[in-house]
Amino acid sequence: MTGAPLFERMALIGIGLIGSSLAQAARERGLVKEIAVSTRSPATLQRAEELGLGDSYSLDAAVAVDGADLVILCVPVGANEAVAKWIAPALKKGAILTDVGSTKGSVIDQVGPHVPQGVHFIPGHPIAGTEQSGPDAGFSTLFEQRWCILTPPEDVDQAALEKLTAFWRRCGSDVDRMDARHHDLVLAIVSHLPHLIAYNIVGTADDLETVTKSEVIKYSASGFRDFTRLAASDPTMWRDVCLNNKDAILEMLARFSEDLSALQRAIRWGDGDMLFDLFTRTRSIRRSIIEAGQDMDEPDFGRHAKDKPFISAD
Amino acid sequence: MTGAPLFERMALIGIGLIGSSLAQAARERGLVKEIAVSTRSPATLQRAEELGLGDSYSLDAAVAVDGADLVILCVPVGANEAVAKWIAPALKKGAILTDVGSTKGSVIDQVGPHVPQGVHFIPGHPIAGTEQSGPDAGFSTLFEQRWCILTPPEDVDQAALEKLTAFWRRCGSDVDRMDARHHDLVLAIVSHLPHLIAYNIVGTADDLETVTKSEVIKYSASGFRDFTRLAASDPTMWRDVCLNNKDAILEMLARFSEDLSALQRAIRWGDGDMLFDLFTRTRSIRRSIIEAGQDMDEPDFGRHAKDKPFISAD
Repeated sequence: MTGAPLFERMALIGIGLIGSSLAQAARERGLVKEIAVSTRSPATLQRAEELGLGDSYSLDAAVAVDGADLVILCVPVGANEAVAKWIAPALKKGAILTDVGSTKGSVIDQVGPHVPQGVHFIPGHPIAGTEQSGPDAGFSTLFEQRWCILTPPEDVDQAALEKLTAFWRRCGSDVDRMDARHHDLVLAIVSHLPHLIAYNIVGTADDLETVTKSEVIKYSASGFRDFTRLAASDPTMWRDVCLNNKDAILEMLARFSEDLSALQRAIRWGDGDMLFDLFTRTRSIRRSIIEAGQDMDEPDFGRHAKDKPFISAD
Repeated sequence: MTGAPLFERMALIGIGLIGSSLAQAARERGLVKEIAVSTRSPATLQRAEELGLGDSYSLDAAVAVDGADLVILCVPVGANEAVAKWIAPALKKGAILTDVGSTKGSVIDQVGPHVPQGVHFIPGHPIAGTEQSGPDAGFSTLFEQRWCILTPPEDVDQAALEKLTAFWRRCGSDVDRMDARHHDLVLAIVSHLPHLIAYNIVGTADDLETVTKSEVIKYSASGFRDFTRLAASDPTMWRDVCLNNKDAILEMLARFSEDLSALQRAIRWGDGDMLFDLFTRTRSIRRSIIEAGQDMDEPDFGRHAKDKPFISAD
């Protein structure tokens, strides 16, 4: 899937898992002529240069965006406002400014006011990632077969929206558009709550005095290990998500807790029918996810076959 | 890893994921001379026969255990007592009777009283499985690199214990021994609570009116899908686990809920430091699990590479 470059110069502000993957995807697919990389950590910037992710590197975000017709903020959502203030005076007229943050209402509130007239601000969120972070974790196919949600303002410039949509499609993504508030509600249930629950249960296990940590680790294949993947995600990113999508997250947490209380009560009272009903209706959702191509149709996430070679204790 | 058969005749009562995997592992590794299969469902028994899992097949569990020197109960834990009553009169003197249930205290309480003198009852629990169920889901390498916990009584016959240990080792497992009550506490945190949490969050998502089910499915790769695997597990098995390890599960649920309330409060009050601390300390547990060989060291459970081929929407 190739074609003419869509942009002259893409500036990536932040070069972690997402920024690095975007650099590699854009390069591999010829989507931009030039890539300018900026991040505030000298060590990370140096690593990005060693990996050859860009054509130019700068600790000054304003230098990176200078002359760029596509600027993508790839920083934790809590850092967006400071970056927006920093780069605003340097943004080129007609440029598209977007981001990859997991919360969209906050980005509109915090970045929106600083965007100069003539710059097209279109918030975005690729629904893609792994539990790893940093420039070394990036790879060019991260966005393939994944959704990217754009939350354009009502008065968005249609040509800019189409161009950004084409960019994500050529990265391999399907593109959806929705209202920012609705995005934040959807993500609260499909992403933010799962991460919080995972962090929480791993924390609970870590605190036990009746079961040792070594026992938790040894027997983790019986379920627990599935949660540790999400609970190994980037702490800064997830702190910022919690602080910036508070209302929707608290709403989902409250519903989850209510349901958990009902489940607890069913266990206490030995209500086998209620338990069986819940455990039955949850099965069909996984089937739908597999049919939608959003997970593999192999037991145990396909892990088992890769467990080898095995040295027996016998 | 071969050797002389350890048993003359192995009777498998129940032939779901675990029973089927045991039949295949024992056959492939030459651990038994003969395999007798019994299950109460005619359709399942017929399927087991089509798959060639045994040498003989019977709907009567007493027929299957007749002459067997190894009897393994592979039924949901709630069915153990009825099966024990049924087979007790037919058990051969000197036979080893074991099970594969996820709760051990209940099995001792419910099976123990029915075991005739001279039969060696040694409860067991292979920490292995997938979210799939039924005889077709079984495979011979399921137990490799997994732990099997035995919870022998204090006055256990040592020769019988060693023989059962050797059986599991030759199935590819490492064998641990522990007190049944401690087993139930350990499993409550590493397995039962994770499954309940997974069932619960999938149920919560299923009930939402503000976010559609199709949105949950589309965007599930952002975290939610990891929970759906556990929530697709066998409902009968998990209902029985809840009913038979009530105290330990309620204890772990209570701790989890307390921790979740603290997390909720931190989000409400914008306590970024508390969030960052929790999200940081949970990372190290995953590292330990990978080092212990209990999960793969590949991002996203190694799923990404298998997502292809991808047909672009472009």
